[in-house]
Amino acid sequence: MTTAPAPLRVALLGGGVVGGAVARQLALQADDLAHRVGRPLELVGIAVRRPGRDRSELGVDPALFTTDAEELVTRADIVVEVIGGIEPARSLILSAMEHGASVVTANKALLAEDGPTLYAAAAAHGVDLYYEAAVAGAIPILRPIRDSLAGDSIRRVIGIVNGTTNFVLDAMDTSGAGFTETVERAQALGYAEADPTADVEGFDAAAKAAILSSLAFHTRVSSADVHREGITEVSARDIAAAREMGCVVKLLAICERVDGPDGPGISARVHPALIPLSHPLASVREAYNAVFVEAEGAGDLMFYGQGAGGDPTASAVLGDIVAVARTRVLGGRGPGESAYAELPVLPIGQAITRYHVSLEVADKPGVLAAVATVFARQGVSIETVRQQVVTDDQDVSRAMLIIVTHAATDAALSATVDELAGLDTVNEVTSVMRVEGN
Amino acid sequence: MTTAPAPLRVALLGGGVVGGAVARQLALQADDLAHRVGRPLELVGIAVRRPGRDRSELGVDPALFTTDAEELVTRADIVVEVIGGIEPARSLILSAMEHGASVVTANKALLAEDGPTLYAAAAAHGVDLYYEAAVAGAIPILRPIRDSLAGDSIRRVIGIVNGTTNFVLDAMDTSGAGFTETVERAQALGYAEADPTADVEGFDAAAKAAILSSLAFHTRVSSADVHREGITEVSARDIAAAREMGCVVKLLAICERVDGPDGPGISARVHPALIPLSHPLASVREAYNAVFVEAEGAGDLMFYGQGAGGDPTASAVLGDIVAVARTRVLGGRGPGESAYAELPVLPIGQAITRYHVSLEVADKPGVLAAVATVFARQGVSIETVRQQVVTDDQDVSRAMLIIVTHAATDAALSATVDELAGLDTVNEVTSVMRVEGN
Repeated sequence: MTTAPAPLRVALLGGGVVGGAVARQLALQADDLAHRVGRPLELVGIAVRRPGRDRSELGVDPALFTTDAEELVTRADIVVEVIGGIEPARSLILSAMEHGASVVTANKALLAEDGPTLYAAAAAHGVDLYYEAAVAGAIPILRPIRDSLAGDSIRRVIGIVNGTTNFVLDAMDTSGAGFTETVERAQALGYAEADPTADVEGFDAAAKAAILSSLAFHTRVSSADVHREGITEVSARDIAAAREMGCVVKLLAICERVDGPDGPGISARVHPALIPLSHPLASVREAYNAVFVEAEGAGDLMFYGQGAGGDPTASAVLGDIVAVARTRVLGGRGPGESAYAELPVLPIGQAITRYHVSLEVADKPGVLAAVATVFARQGVSIETVRQQVVTDDQDVSRAMLIIVTHAATDAALSATVDELAGLDTVNEVTSVMRVEGN
Repeated sequence: MTTAPAPLRVALLGGGVVGGAVARQLALQADDLAHRVGRPLELVGIAVRRPGRDRSELGVDPALFTTDAEELVTRADIVVEVIGGIEPARSLILSAMEHGASVVTANKALLAEDGPTLYAAAAAHGVDLYYEAAVAGAIPILRPIRDSLAGDSIRRVIGIVNGTTNFVLDAMDTSGAGFTETVERAQALGYAEADPTADVEGFDAAAKAAILSSLAFHTRVSSADVHREGITEVSARDIAAAREMGCVVKLLAICERVDGPDGPGISARVHPALIPLSHPLASVREAYNAVFVEAEGAGDLMFYGQGAGGDPTASAVLGDIVAVARTRVLGGRGPGESAYAELPVLPIGQAITRYHVSLEVADKPGVLAAVATVFARQGVSIETVRQQVVTDDQDVSRAMLIIVTHAATDAALSATVDELAGLDTVNEVTSVMRVEGN
């Protein structure tokens, strides 16, 4: 007679969309998960704020719901945190690890603000801390960077990691509509929150850029280190101009190794940028996410899929649950992150990028010479210039110069634009956007 | 005074393109790898067949080369097998594990023929066996399937996993040239071997399909279980016909869960197929690889990158070296594969697929009725029919029927085509191709 192996106790913090999907799948896939782990997983409690709410659709024993998260984390082998925010999530995770539990979390804000505290606690207590769901939802991207590419040297990570902004920019591209109108449509369709600030201002993408940079470059990078520009200033005209040069506008999270004036460093930034239609990221439509990785050995890789939603996020959480559960069964610890490289995060001025600049200029001889002189003085090389006359619906004609530069430091490009704005012959700098993905 | 941690001993079997790249990177990235692992990695030997060959470009101490692979595997913590083929690779791997070494291999043929023997030996000796480089080169795909999606239920994996055939089909699509001519061009460019049989007949892709199916469905699948059709019969006319219906022709490795007449099973097959231009796999050009995964929770995912070449393959091998080395440092065992599901691999006749059939028919009334009657009798539903008259360069006109079916069993579709070929009114079945990726 054999004894069934004792189950591993799983505690769930949060009973929302993701927590509910995790609870449902733990029940639905119980047999498969037990086989894959080597021991059954037993849900021992779900910490919720409002215990009275009807959660019958989860198919979970109502006795499992508790409001006492502090107590719950002391009696689990695996604690799954899907409540989000900084507190009480951080305290609960730290307490769980002190009590010997491994932790799975989807909390990008916490990891990007205070990841090193959590990583250190996991190491100190000999437990695992996994968080695949924190970046790009269902897409396996953190494990590939941390494990699969651990023997390679990553040059650059460029991610479309925010579904809301990708939906908005893609819809603007398709419809020709403006930003405000499109955000309203996205809200009506459920692709944008009632308050879309965290998405459209790039806060969400910046947290993910911090996590990606930390893993890719073995360095501590927090949200505060990430240069951030949102998409609220992107106009229908910008998107049309991008089209004209064979590009689309995407909000990109860019993490790259840069040789700065004082040695190597990291550029971590989130901003809208033009990318050529021939680039694999250009075909990422609607609310999909994708992460493009350039590595010395592997070359170019892309990871594509759904970046949000209950079931996709739960898939990533469940993969991590199986991973930390397998460690319990197989012994030892799973691989974690390291920060040995300690590269400096460089200011945005030291980022190497290209600019697409549109100027409304006086329609007279010598304008191009004056403009070109400014670029030359700042040491910025021009790739293409297009002069055109645009006639608006009031029949007013305007002379436009559209300039795309070669790569230069952001500081030089920014100084160039400032100086252009001060020229007598320049009426207005109508748009400035970076160009990525050559 | 602290003592530096003892290095982990790495033995390399094979000094070819991949082995050379691995040796070079172990030296170049020594500091980084030591930090990432927690202990230095020391290359203790490279087993080669021809010891006298000049390998000075690897920058490796010549004393490390040996022809005694049997001896080398007894004195390593990690054995890296990149010689390929069944023997002596299998015996060396088994011996390495008996001597307590973890093993990293890129040997798809061996894994697809006799993987379970190796997995069992790894488990018996408490060591790790990783083989990310065996499928799709640098693209992290096995680890995501085995670990990241371990809490999900995979429905289907569709891979472009052979760079040579993708290069050939893409070049045929771009140039309009025929198969033979294009293979010769691929050979001249180094994209196809002098003897391209393993690639163009689908053997290479079938081995990868076996490995992908085994991991995705927790079942033992060997190369012999995989239905295999190559691309040698694909004509310029087929590719033009695909274009006309908004598709491209790709050689696909398809692994899917199917509800057969006797319950669930696996369909594992390699064959050319039409996929719509709107499908993410359609944009995989040249010799690139990509694997598209459909899972219940995660939805659609795609993994894209370089599937071959020394440096990309070495990147995957080095990632596995770091992974097994970390296990040595952190204790326990890394996650392995399981075969608990024991699903039957169904014959090709039970695969559910769609057909694109071109018929040259008699140009007289009643032909379509006769053809449609055959489809109806076999229970195959027609999605579209196009009738057209094609005039060739000898000014001979031929009446064509191009039919695309709805999904049906491959047996029913195959029987339909057989019966069509026997009709008086059908002069010739000019092409039959499956359609995937709806």
